[in-house]
Amino acid sequence: MRHGLRAARRVGSWAAVALILTAATPAGAPFTPKVQSAAREIRDRALSDDTAYETLRSLTTEVGPRSAGSEGDRRAVAWALARLRTLGFQNVHSEPVKVRHWVRGEARAEIVTPWPQRLVAVALGGSVATPASGIEAEVVPVTNLTELKGMKADQVSGRIVFFTRRMLRTHDGSGYSTAVAERSRGAAEAAKLGARAVVIRSAGTSTSRIAHTGGMRYEKDGVKVPALALSNTDADMVEHQLALGVVRLRLFNTSQMADSEMSANVIGEFPGRGARDQIVLLGAHLDSWDLGTGANDDGAGVAIVTSAARLAGREGTRRTLRVVLYADEEFGGEGSDNYVKVHGGEIAHTVACTESDLGAFPIWGMASRVPMDRIVSARALHAVIEPMGIPYIGNQADGGSDVDTLGHLGVPVFDFKTDASPYFDLHHTIDDTFDHVDPKSLRENVAAYAMLAYLVAATDVDFGRIIWTR
Amino acid sequence: MRHGLRAARRVGSWAAVALILTAATPAGAPFTPKVQSAAREIRDRALSDDTAYETLRSLTTEVGPRSAGSEGDRRAVAWALARLRTLGFQNVHSEPVKVRHWVRGEARAEIVTPWPQRLVAVALGGSVATPASGIEAEVVPVTNLTELKGMKADQVSGRIVFFTRRMLRTHDGSGYSTAVAERSRGAAEAAKLGARAVVIRSAGTSTSRIAHTGGMRYEKDGVKVPALALSNTDADMVEHQLALGVVRLRLFNTSQMADSEMSANVIGEFPGRGARDQIVLLGAHLDSWDLGTGANDDGAGVAIVTSAARLAGREGTRRTLRVVLYADEEFGGEGSDNYVKVHGGEIAHTVACTESDLGAFPIWGMASRVPMDRIVSARALHAVIEPMGIPYIGNQADGGSDVDTLGHLGVPVFDFKTDASPYFDLHHTIDDTFDHVDPKSLRENVAAYAMLAYLVAATDVDFGRIIWTR
Repeated sequence: MRHGLRAARRVGSWAAVALILTAATPAGAPFTPKVQSAAREIRDRALSDDTAYETLRSLTTEVGPRSAGSEGDRRAVAWALARLRTLGFQNVHSEPVKVRHWVRGEARAEIVTPWPQRLVAVALGGSVATPASGIEAEVVPVTNLTELKGMKADQVSGRIVFFTRRMLRTHDGSGYSTAVAERSRGAAEAAKLGARAVVIRSAGTSTSRIAHTGGMRYEKDGVKVPALALSNTDADMVEHQLALGVVRLRLFNTSQMADSEMSANVIGEFPGRGARDQIVLLGAHLDSWDLGTGANDDGAGVAIVTSAARLAGREGTRRTLRVVLYADEEFGGEGSDNYVKVHGGEIAHTVACTESDLGAFPIWGMASRVPMDRIVSARALHAVIEPMGIPYIGNQADGGSDVDTLGHLGVPVFDFKTDASPYFDLHHTIDDTFDHVDPKSLRENVAAYAMLAYLVAATDVDFGRIIWTR
Repeated sequence: MRHGLRAARRVGSWAAVALILTAATPAGAPFTPKVQSAAREIRDRALSDDTAYETLRSLTTEVGPRSAGSEGDRRAVAWALARLRTLGFQNVHSEPVKVRHWVRGEARAEIVTPWPQRLVAVALGGSVATPASGIEAEVVPVTNLTELKGMKADQVSGRIVFFTRRMLRTHDGSGYSTAVAERSRGAAEAAKLGARAVVIRSAGTSTSRIAHTGGMRYEKDGVKVPALALSNTDADMVEHQLALGVVRLRLFNTSQMADSEMSANVIGEFPGRGARDQIVLLGAHLDSWDLGTGANDDGAGVAIVTSAARLAGREGTRRTLRVVLYADEEFGGEGSDNYVKVHGGEIAHTVACTESDLGAFPIWGMASRVPMDRIVSARALHAVIEPMGIPYIGNQADGGSDVDTLGHLGVPVFDFKTDASPYFDLHHTIDDTFDHVDPKSLRENVAAYAMLAYLVAATDVDFGRIIWTR
């Protein structure tokens, strides 16, 4: 996941909404005892089903890293087509998507003075290269973008800006929503004041000496300076030396943008038997960053939504269950844009959407985003899921980066919120690997998504159209 | 620490010894109430003293990695001389030691077939380089040396042997004592059967995607083949692919032995006021592996024994407190050998020795190694320390790699055993850094060593001479 955590900052207001609505909770009218019973059977089946785990093992072992436009990305598309067919999906196909392609090279960072030390660093996704001889300059520590904006050019010019903000570890990912600003826009803003390069303390919480990558953007006509992330350990090292005097860093980076490449959204369905044109969309993204094998981000999502749709779809549902494995969530978002372009005509009868893109960690809450007069239906749906130990946390679901575009076009959104504390230890690092996925939590995620998918697809409940206000 | 855990396997027999001796525990006769009271005051001072933490911050920040014979090693010797003087030690000097010098280059490992993936790998200390074009060969998985010895040359010849043994996480480090065999001797043994190279699952327990280095040895006239360690995550990856068919790896490594270099043992004292020639020796090693900054291995030991000796020595003791910061514990052990050569005449009146080389983790036991008829004195000493929550675990202390040589020459040995479970997550990795040292545990270690140092140095208790049986 890239930055789909905007709504997470509003947990306070969700709680208030939830409180007001408690009195209005209906008796579960739209969901008959038969449907509820079938949903529970699907849940129980999910909790003893290793399909998701084996799907994830296959993706991470046989494909591995798959950043947009890379050879791994092409292998992932072929893998996904084959996997969906094997899992019993119908109408399995790919839809070509042109994606931005950035190629990581080598990145090195070291302290030159006062005490030479090598640092663990990675280039941020999108960063330009340094000159071949590298960049050596004095470091100017800056807490965050706000502080940078109060600085004058002579404090920054010719120097390397070091953003020191430390990401907070929070269960809802709100620490990331805040810290990602310097990663995304730090280089563009620092360049305006004449900085030669930017290094950030990783926008991540790993306590191991590994750095977190992630996307960054330059301004269209702005000056482009290299941007690297240091591991938290190495950010400490620079701060320890800064406490004792002037620090000079040497940076070297060979990453660069390349020509755009073709990738694809991969789509599969369990077609509805009564209202085939009504779509329940389950999304995840197929691409990953290149450092790990994209196990939690977002191989887990791929494994969860495919297994959930399969478990729900094999029962035979009234509406169509559609899984969309999006291209390039991490860097460009073109997969999401492309889906809306190609499927514009279907959006009016896409009855609900959801995305799994926060890893296979324990779920602590379910959110909806439906019109106010349909919250009773959302809560009735949640009431069937609630015995999994998942509370309803309000009506401000955001849906993740990919289905976000659908939400903005009126499609009702459901979220399951997973524990972001361990997620951001792994996120965008070499540690995002299969061994960091807990099979039990993965199965619980499959069960929750399978219940959601089934309850919407097996019924004719209408969640209306939402008007997105932000 | 390198492999000083031989005795750890004998915890069972220690426990039995402790049980038998409980009835014989004396009333603490050798240690007067006044001495005991002074020892407790030193302990309490240690528990609110940040000298060790600041010493460690200084060593890791201002020197960092310091493998034997490297530029960092030279900086470490200069740093140690200055630090001991600052801390109030007397007779501060260095004693030149010629050390083996190995230079790490670049190491890379990747799976070529069936599914190409890059692996996180490091060269083992002492490994020769691959040919410039690398080595590509089929992998033959072998659990351990015992299994290898049952194999025939045609199963191994021309292949890359992959030792799959997984180190067990244990509080006493016994998992390491077992797993280190393949790291130390795997390449030598595999070469005898015609292997082209060796990769091992790291002899360490990190769950992060980082590899553990450590020393290895070839046989004098044996064939030398490269030896790399994979991170636990990447060992999993190779095993996942091996479960599906034949795996070919490509290895590349540029490390090599270089000419021997000069390093030094660094020594400082708080001279005794009554029996100056009687020495209480506190050891740690100044060198570290090169991947991290040697914070727990063994910067912590340096910080602990210097702070402990200072706290005890400032009180004025009857005997001399001597701190020895040994050269090249990790790779050659020359520092330890050199100390015994230079100080052979003093060994007869070295009344006790101890070494801190298991990190600054909580202490779970104290061991002695004294003649059977002096165990009562060792237990009397322990009785003063016991209220720290440290039990006596028997008379089979091993003293760590450096003071081991003294033990073999008859010097009584005392050990504090720290929790090895977190230690071996960090050991010999890039994660062996300052942020992985807990200041509270560090202070507790200082307090324990300071009490030990004081109780031996302030009294005339005679622990005799030991006869080492192994």
